[in-house]
Amino acid sequence: MTAPDPRLSINQATIKHADLATALAVTAEAGIEAIGLWREPVQEVGLATAARLLAASGLRFTTHCRAGFFTMPEGPARRAAIDDNRRAIEEAATLAAAGAPGSTAVLVLVAGGLPDGSRDLVAARGRVRDALEELVPDAEAAGVTLAIEPLHPMFASDRCVVSTLGQALDLAAGLPAHAVGAAVDTFHIWWDPDVLSAIDRAGREGRIATYQVCDWKTPLPADVLLSRHYPGDGIIDFASLTRAVVATGYDRDIEVEIFNEDIWATDPAEAVRRTAEGFAAAVSPHLESRA
Amino acid sequence: MTAPDPRLSINQATIKHADLATALAVTAEAGIEAIGLWREPVQEVGLATAARLLAASGLRFTTHCRAGFFTMPEGPARRAAIDDNRRAIEEAATLAAAGAPGSTAVLVLVAGGLPDGSRDLVAARGRVRDALEELVPDAEAAGVTLAIEPLHPMFASDRCVVSTLGQALDLAAGLPAHAVGAAVDTFHIWWDPDVLSAIDRAGREGRIATYQVCDWKTPLPADVLLSRHYPGDGIIDFASLTRAVVATGYDRDIEVEIFNEDIWATDPAEAVRRTAEGFAAAVSPHLESRA
Repeated sequence: MTAPDPRLSINQATIKHADLATALAVTAEAGIEAIGLWREPVQEVGLATAARLLAASGLRFTTHCRAGFFTMPEGPARRAAIDDNRRAIEEAATLAAAGAPGSTAVLVLVAGGLPDGSRDLVAARGRVRDALEELVPDAEAAGVTLAIEPLHPMFASDRCVVSTLGQALDLAAGLPAHAVGAAVDTFHIWWDPDVLSAIDRAGREGRIATYQVCDWKTPLPADVLLSRHYPGDGIIDFASLTRAVVATGYDRDIEVEIFNEDIWATDPAEAVRRTAEGFAAAVSPHLESRA
Repeated sequence: MTAPDPRLSINQATIKHADLATALAVTAEAGIEAIGLWREPVQEVGLATAARLLAASGLRFTTHCRAGFFTMPEGPARRAAIDDNRRAIEEAATLAAAGAPGSTAVLVLVAGGLPDGSRDLVAARGRVRDALEELVPDAEAAGVTLAIEPLHPMFASDRCVVSTLGQALDLAAGLPAHAVGAAVDTFHIWWDPDVLSAIDRAGREGRIATYQVCDWKTPLPADVLLSRHYPGDGIIDFASLTRAVVATGYDRDIEVEIFNEDIWATDPAEAVRRTAEGFAAAVSPHLESRA
């Protein structure tokens, strides 16, 4: 087997049932150079231990997943959410400092859905902007980039009121690009008739905080949240999307983040091997420089 | 119970298991004035009989559902699809002529998904435009308006490569508005950050061929195609969407089209009653003039 693409990063969600030490080990042992982490397994061992394990792994750190969920109106729940985002910013900064050179301090933000009983998407989206403005000073102080992640519109009511990359860029407009960017995830945006121009715009505005890849396939499973697949197993055109991202000058790591019950049931080392294989076939050919 | 809104039209899909005669009867008996029909139950009795039954019902005819499915490359399958669309245009014209005064000759088009083995959305979308251009003379000759229906992006790969109202309008650009319009269906477009400006544009361009309402609620059922609900039972903001449609000058009937196993299992007369009730509560208050 050839070496994995040096730009491939395993997002820990892909091997959800592995604890942090296992996730780091199987990733490094596969010859992969980078990893994106999730808050829950990091908190399970504690941030200091997580940072030590990450440093020992020799892996680059690419993103911290995830914070956000701040669409509720002002009140104690919103204050708790903002506080939690501040903690996540600190975690992202600590982990990025612990990762190998080339690590990036990126915190992925999922905005949250409509508050219970509300039908007012416009107001919910406005509160996303409010939260970003409130968090910018913390992000700047910590040297962290907040990555607004547009989620597929099938999640617009219950998970994320930000549905397109263009909308994420509109929400970020006027805020410093080193503090607020967007997560460009093929699974969520492949269908968008404006996706290529939105990627170009994201590049011009300096806001591609992370590029993430996984595939879309139908029929969707009963839980549509778990409908993500290895790159190449579905219908997403990684050629056009990846070339558009590369054309902006994006030259950092690329994560594969898959939520899928079958893949989660796979031995983590095997899931990582399959991820690297899919990435090499579906994504690597469209990157400018390859090992 | 108060009389149903005079602008409410029952789309036959809402009472899918009723045959044509039953669908017409329960709709008329509920005091509803209009109906949208589906091709299969019409073909089951034959077009001439369907037209006679419709005329006898005294109902207005609002849309014929549905044709389209023309994303495949040139070849026999594409020719068969185009021919089928021509038949559907004739059916729509015949039924509109048989309906009560105020009937509209509108044929709803669902574009179709990616052809098997293809990842090329751009090409598939181009072939939708090609098909429209080919069908315009037939539509004009028959006095029928083709209504491109953008479907929710969760259907973009396997059912409809047209995902937003703005995209539908782009596909129609330059074609005569009396022959090519768009179906504005709340279920498919409520999430779109640009939905209100797209509705305004559709109005200015004279392309709102039909306004259809039903609701969105999560969790989605195992078959996401069947995730539509009575107006008011979910999270769609019918106030802003309906007011935007009314502001364009749209003054015709409004269909309720619901795919939902539970509703299909309901007695059709009861489903129609519930539909009228939901419409009166969620949609009627936002129409300019009410009976």
